Amino acid sequence: MLKLISENRAFDGVQRVYSHRSEACDCDMTFGLYLPAEAAFGPVPLLTYLSGLTCTHANVMEKSGAQRWAAEEGIAVLFPDTSPRGEGVPDDEAYDLGQGAGFYVNAQNAPWSSHFKMWDYITKDLHGALAELPVDLERQSITGHSMGGHGALTLAMHMPERYRAVSAFAPIANPTQSDWGTKQLGAYLPQTEWANHDASLLMADRGFAGPVLIDQGTEDQFLDLLRPESLAHAMTARRQAGEFRMQKGYDHSYYFVSTFMADHIAFHAEALHG
Amino acid sequence: MLKLISENRAFDGVQRVYSHRSEACDCDMTFGLYLPAEAAFGPVPLLTYLSGLTCTHANVMEKSGAQRWAAEEGIAVLFPDTSPRGEGVPDDEAYDLGQGAGFYVNAQNAPWSSHFKMWDYITKDLHGALAELPVDLERQSITGHSMGGHGALTLAMHMPERYRAVSAFAPIANPTQSDWGTKQLGAYLPQTEWANHDASLLMADRGFAGPVLIDQGTEDQFLDLLRPESLAHAMTARRQAGEFRMQKGYDHSYYFVSTFMADHIAFHAEALHG
Repeated sequence: MLKLISENRAFDGVQRVYSHRSEACDCDMTFGLYLPAEAAFGPVPLLTYLSGLTCTHANVMEKSGAQRWAAEEGIAVLFPDTSPRGEGVPDDEAYDLGQGAGFYVNAQNAPWSSHFKMWDYITKDLHGALAELPVDLERQSITGHSMGGHGALTLAMHMPERYRAVSAFAPIANPTQSDWGTKQLGAYLPQTEWANHDASLLMADRGFAGPVLIDQGTEDQFLDLLRPESLAHAMTARRQAGEFRMQKGYDHSYYFVSTFMADHIAFHAEALHG
Repeated sequence: MLKLISENRAFDGVQRVYSHRSEACDCDMTFGLYLPAEAAFGPVPLLTYLSGLTCTHANVMEKSGAQRWAAEEGIAVLFPDTSPRGEGVPDDEAYDLGQGAGFYVNAQNAPWSSHFKMWDYITKDLHGALAELPVDLERQSITGHSMGGHGALTLAMHMPERYRAVSAFAPIANPTQSDWGTKQLGAYLPQTEWANHDASLLMADRGFAGPVLIDQGTEDQFLDLLRPESLAHAMTARRQAGEFRMQKGYDHSYYFVSTFMADHIAFHAEALHG
C-alpha cells in the first residue's frame, strides 16, 4: 500500500516520492522513484541507486542529475532511504551508526535488530511494493555511492538472478578491514556474518555474473576508509569482467557522482535493454 | 580580495566557492563559480545565474546540473547569493523579505538601505572581484529562476552593453502588480523606483538588444504571483526577438530548472561564442 507524497515533472517523466509500511523495518519508509515518459505505456526497466552515510532518499534525487540520463534511456530509477527512521527507532549520536547508516544488512544485535533490517527491506518489502508500479522487475540492476556502493555490490553478488549489472561510485569496498565497516558490522552483526557483507571478499569468493563498473576519485578524502585497492585486486585476480576507473582529481562529493552518472546509466541501460 | 572556501572537481572543471568583502552590502558575501577545463588555458565566457527566494548560492550549484552543460560549452557559470547576510544585517521573519530575498535592487528605505544593495553588489563588487579570475568579462550573459529571473531580466535590460543574452526560468515577471513585488519593492524602495525593476514594464518600455528565452511551467504553483502573461504580452507587443515557452506539466521546482538547463546554456553559449 503506497502513499504518494510528492510528484514533480522532470525530463518528460515524473519524480515521485512514496511512503509505505515496511514489515522488515517495522516502521514507515520513504523512497523516491523516477519514471521516464515511457512508463505511461508499460513497464520499464529499473535501476536501484543506494545512497551513502547520512543521506535520505532525497540527496541523490536532487543532486545527481540521474533523471536526465534515465529519461534518455527510458529506465526508471529507485532511490531508497538508507535506514529505518521515526519514533521508537534506535539511533546513535555518531553520523555513521544507526539512522542514516543502515549499511544494507539485517541487524542481529540489540538494540538494532528491532528495526535495522535494510537487506530484507530492499530485497523483499520494497521489491514487493514495486509490483503496483510500471516497472519491469525482471529487468533490474543496481548502483550506489559509498555505503550505497557497498550495498549495491553485496546485494548484486548475493542475488545475481535479480540484478543484471552492478556499478558503484566510491564504494566502501572492504568494510571488514576498515573503520567504515568494523564499527557498523560490529554493532549490527556477529563477526561470523561480516564476510557476507564485504564486497572485496565476495568478489574474491564468488564474483558477479554480469558486468561491473567502479568509479573512484583519486582525491577522495576517504580513500583510507574505502580501500578501493582491495576490490581492484579481487576483481583482477578473479578475472571478473568489469572496469575499475580511478578518476583523476575527483573527491567523494555529489560533484563526483554527477560527473559520472551519465556513464553509469548508459552502462546499466545496455544491460537492461540488452 | 577573494577567499577560496571550497573546490570540487566536476565534469573536468572545478566548482569553487569564494567569499569576499562587498562594499555595497557592507558585509562578506559568498558566491559559487564553475570553471570548465578550458579556463586553465585562458579566460572563458561567463554566464551569471541569479537564484530565487530563500536560496543561497548553493542550491543551484547542487541541484540544477548546470555544470554538465557549461563544461560541454566551455563557459563559466557564476552563482551569486540572493542577499547580504550575517551579524548586523537586517532580516524579517517572512521567507520573502530580507535575507534570502534581496530582489536585486539597491534598497533606499530603512532599515534595509544599510546593507541591501544587491544591484550594486552584482554589477560592481562582484564584477570587480571577477577580474582576478579566468573569465572574459567582455563575453557575459545572464539567467535566473523566479526572483532571480526577475533580476536577470531587469539587469539585462538596464545593461545591454554588458549582457549579450538573457534567459529566465519562471521569472517574477510583473512585480509591480503582484504580492511578489509590491511587498518587497515597497519595503526597499520609494514607489517612484518600482517601474525600473519590473521586467514587463521594462520590456514594454525598452526591450532588450540581444536574444531572450523564457521557460515557464504550466503547473507552476505560483503562476498568479509570477504573472508570466504580462511579460509574454510585452515581448510580443514590442516584437522583441525571443522565445516564450509554456512547458506542459512542470512546476516551480529545481526539477523544472534542471529539465531545461541544457537548453538555456546552449542558448547562452551561442550568444557568447558567436
